[in-house]
Parts: sequence; structure tokens; C-alpha cells
Amino acid sequence: MSRIGRQTFVYDRPPVVAAHRCVAGQKEGAGPLRDWFDAILEDDLLGQKSWELAESEMVRRCARDALDAAGLSAGAVQALLGGDLNNQIIATSFAAKKLSAPFIGLYGACSTFVEALVLGAALIDAGALQNALCCASSHFCTAERQFRFPLELGTQRPPQASWTATACGCALLKGVGEGIRVTAGTLGKVVDLDISDANHMGAAMAPAVFDTLTAHLTDTRQTADDFDLIVTGDLGWIGRDLLLQLCREADVDMPEDKLVDCGASLYYKEQDAHAGGSGCGCVASVSCGWIMKRIEAGELRRVLLSGSGAMLSPTSSQQGQSIPGIAYAVCLEGE
Amino acid sequence: MSRIGRQTFVYDRPPVVAAHRCVAGQKEGAGPLRDWFDAILEDDLLGQKSWELAESEMVRRCARDALDAAGLSAGAVQALLGGDLNNQIIATSFAAKKLSAPFIGLYGACSTFVEALVLGAALIDAGALQNALCCASSHFCTAERQFRFPLELGTQRPPQASWTATACGCALLKGVGEGIRVTAGTLGKVVDLDISDANHMGAAMAPAVFDTLTAHLTDTRQTADDFDLIVTGDLGWIGRDLLLQLCREADVDMPEDKLVDCGASLYYKEQDAHAGGSGCGCVASVSCGWIMKRIEAGELRRVLLSGSGAMLSPTSSQQGQSIPGIAYAVCLEGE
Repeated sequence: MSRIGRQTFVYDRPPVVAAHRCVAGQKEGAGPLRDWFDAILEDDLLGQKSWELAESEMVRRCARDALDAAGLSAGAVQALLGGDLNNQIIATSFAAKKLSAPFIGLYGACSTFVEALVLGAALIDAGALQNALCCASSHFCTAERQFRFPLELGTQRPPQASWTATACGCALLKGVGEGIRVTAGTLGKVVDLDISDANHMGAAMAPAVFDTLTAHLTDTRQTADDFDLIVTGDLGWIGRDLLLQLCREADVDMPEDKLVDCGASLYYKEQDAHAGGSGCGCVASVSCGWIMKRIEAGELRRVLLSGSGAMLSPTSSQQGQSIPGIAYAVCLEGE
Repeated sequence: MSRIGRQTFVYDRPPVVAAHRCVAGQKEGAGPLRDWFDAILEDDLLGQKSWELAESEMVRRCARDALDAAGLSAGAVQALLGGDLNNQIIATSFAAKKLSAPFIGLYGACSTFVEALVLGAALIDAGALQNALCCASSHFCTAERQFRFPLELGTQRPPQASWTATACGCALLKGVGEGIRVTAGTLGKVVDLDISDANHMGAAMAPAVFDTLTAHLTDTRQTADDFDLIVTGDLGWIGRDLLLQLCREADVDMPEDKLVDCGASLYYKEQDAHAGGSGCGCVASVSCGWIMKRIEAGELRRVLLSGSGAMLSPTSSQQGQSIPGIAYAVCLEGE
């Protein structure tokens, strides 16, 4: 593996995505991407007695399906890398317990899935692992309970608020085989432009996405022209506009028709999701479905996938702190 | 790097600990290890207006001191790996913002420091990074507020409860140079023997520590005889006894005088810390102080350092779930 620039790894022996699976909740399964999900939940509680157990069960099922698709037993997984938005990442760690795989718990808020891809690919390229299961999830009901208000309160949401997706995505990386190759990854820095409105995540994260995307392009000496698509997750409609504005101001060429945001693509506007989808599961499920399937179909060849997270907590918000953002990026290439 | 057994990495070009620093709070600085800390806080609030900002400032200062000791500017840090117990790891991510280094946010509860060492060493050995700053922190007041009760309530603690240390440890790993070498690392699996008493972390974590220590010994074909010291963090006195019992029952040789627990070593019994110290900062500060300084002094040559975490959240406890544990391990060798 080579490290170029300040933040980017180039994988000399690019790991492949041997299998990927995505699950979405009912609202997400009624949106424009419904045909791209591998499974749509019939019941967002998955027969469990709490939303938290439901989210964990969603992770377990999605991971199992990805392993089945790759013909791998849970016992053969060399590392599970992932996390979720729940305090102390309980959805993922409880699923890791059931899978009994070596576990690398991550927290990058909604950037976690891409953080897992960057690290998983690095460990495979290094020969430390032969396979790595990268996953991230979110659940509307666990997130609302924890970050905002109990659902029963029926609190009105401002127009710039995003909607936490009930969804999970799992990608099994392997050192050898066929599939989409992960050819480069860029670590993110924590960037804070002093946004303190916890209902306006797109604004808090756009500067971090700008920072990481430009770091990736600069480090690898590429421009937007070198990619068929640049995917962000999850800025929503407003955050996507802010990213385009930051690019214009810095003279970074970012053609609007090449920039797709997972959160801005997940729901129809009539679905009342306001600024769009968010949550670790949004970028994870959309990239494991819509994006990777289009690469496999030959429709896209080179995709720059970024995942961004808002590193706030209810405590930091209540204490009046601003919202730091972070973003990671990977380059995905078709065969 | 080679991977042996199911969970262990052997670093072919072992990274070195180029510098390490540890900070402790006032209670910890009055305990038996007081002379081994690099700094003892005069004020556990560090002049900040909240405990959370105080913990973040403690991380920032400890990281800065480690960088100063290594003669490295913050801008030269290639990755900061770490986390803390706060929801959404805000102490570490807010410190990462000030350090402006590429950030890999981790969550392994009290195992986070050793999780960071395992991953940081792997990325350096792979040539992906030339240096990595591994850190973890905890603060008694942020942890009490979040996991138990506001301090003002003065709730009585059961005898098996541990005391969250106010402390931080930072180790700067480098690919070249002199210092303690990190020669092998073992990932942990999430292990759950159905303990559900959130005041009894030692019992929840002992099975995970047993699992990881025996995995390391089996994978590397070693026994306790190959180490001068086996360090766990943080089982406390009761958890340490349970680990010894698990070893006896499985016929794993674990000489009692070789097994040292950071949490059980941090306070005098008269300091009323009950089962001992805990928190991400306990194993981080004790290993960056007491353990690494004794290796550098030639008193210890080979140390197996394990960090263990209880992957519960207040929500999972309130919902009656059991407490899964996880543990990571690294082998530290003197020159």
C-alpha cells in the first residue's frame, strides 16, 4: 500500500467487494430507490421487543445475507468493521456478538460505513486480513429516541432537518476474487465551521465533505472528470447545494450532474423527509444497492464514494457546542 | 504483516512507541501510581465550563505533550486513532478538531486504547502510515453523568462497582526509530456470558479478556512464561479473580504474580474506589506510564497488554439486556 499526500491510501493490491447486501425500512422501501434494495422490512420492529434490538437484528440479517451471497460462514469472517448511531454502538456490537467474528468497533457517525471501507481495504491490502465485513446501520426510531424526542411526542421538524433512514448496508471485502475493486481511500479530518443547529446536519457536514473530496482529488492528482459519479452520503438537498457552493468558491470543478447524494436520493419529496435521508444506514444501504449494482451492471466504472458524519452528541448540543463534521472517501472501480 | 490463527497480526516491521504521555486526575494522582504519571491535573475541570470540554481539553493537552516529546508538529500526525466513553465520542472528536489530524474514531469502550494500538501498528507496518497517535480518555464526572447518576445525587455505589478514572494516555507510534516495539496484536470477539449487572463490569469483561488472551497465546504458540508481565485493563480486583478462575478451569497457566490489572492498581483500597479503576483512560494512562516506563527502564522486556471494554449502554441496561464484553491485546517489547 502507498500513502500519497496527507490523507490518502492507494491500495496496491485492491480488495474486491465479494458480496454486498442492503436492507431498508418501509418508508425507504417506498422511495425512488425501492427496486435497488435487496430486502425491504415488512415490520420495522422485526419482531423484536425494542427498536434497539430491531436495529441489531437488521444488522445481523444483512450481514448473514452478505456472507451467504459470498458463500462464507460466519466463522470464516476475519473482521467485522462497523458501527451505528446508538450510544456505545450497541446495535452493531450486539450483532457482532451473534456473528462471533473479530470486531473492530468504529464511530464516525454517518461516515462510519466509508470509514470501515477505508480501514478494511487497508488491512486486506496489507495482508493482515483475507476478508473484512464492513457494515453500518441506522434506525429512525432509535435515532429519534436518542437524538431528538420520543416519537410519541409528535414534535414538528424544521424544513432543514433530515430523516434518519431505517437501513443497513454490508459489504464483504476480500483480497482475491472478482468484483468491484476498492482502489484508494482517504481519511477525514474533523472540520468545524461553527454550525450549531442540530437540525441542520447538511450545513455542518458540507465543509468536511469538501475537505475530504478535495484532499482525495489533490492527493491522487485527479479531477471530477476522472469519475463517472461522485457520491456523497448524507448531505441531503441543502447540504448538497452548500457543497456545490464551496466548490464554486474554491474553483474546484464539480459538475452538478455528476454529484449524487444518497440522502437526497432516498425519498420522494412528497414523503415529507424534509432535507433528505441521513443516518449511518443511508449511505451504507444506498451504496451497497443503487451504486454498487450500477457499477456491476457496467453503467458506472469509476465512482468516488464519500460518507460524512456530524460528530455531535445531545450533550454537546445542549451545552451549546458547534457541530464538527468528518468525511471519508473511497474510490470504487468496476471490472 | 502476517496474520496467524484466527485473530492475531504479527507485525513484520514492528512499529515503535516514539513517545508516550499520560495525564491523571486528582484522585488517580493520589494513588499508588502517582509517581508514574507525566502530569496530574490540579483541577479536574481544567478551567473549562463543562466536564465534557474538560475531558476533551485533557486529550488535547496529552496529545500535544506526546507530540512535543517526539518533536512532531500536530500537522505532521498522519492519523489520530482513539475514542472515549462519551456518547458519540465527543471528547476525542472535539480534540481531533483542534489537532487537525486525520481521525479514525473508534469505539471499544474501555478497550479503545488497545484497539487503537492494534490498528495503528497494523497501518504503520503496512506502510499506510509513518506515524499514528493512539489515544483514549475517560473522566469520572462525564461518565457518572452519562452512565449512572448526576454526581449531586450522591447515590451509593455497590462494592463490586468500579470507579471511572479521570485520565488520558497517548502513544505515538512510528515506523522507524527507537523505542518499545509493538510486535503483535490480537483482535477481540464480542463475548457475553449473560451478566446483566451494570455495576459489575469486571464480571462482564473477564470472559472476553480470557478469550483474547488465550487466542493470543494460542495463535502465537506462547504461554505466560514468554512474558514478564501480563497486563489487563480494566477488570478491577473482582474481575481479575474471575479471570484467574477462568484460566484455572481451562487449564491455562496464568501465574498470579504475573497478572497485573490496571484498574486494580490505580487506587489504594482506602480511596474507596471499590472494585478498582475503569474507563478508557485507566488502561491508557497506566500503560503509557507505569508499564511503558518500566519497559524502557529495562525492568520488563516482554509485556502482553490487554484492554477490555463492556459494550453496554444505559439504554441496553434499562431494556434488561446482558453486557457483552470485548478485549484486544498487543505484545510490547523492550529494546
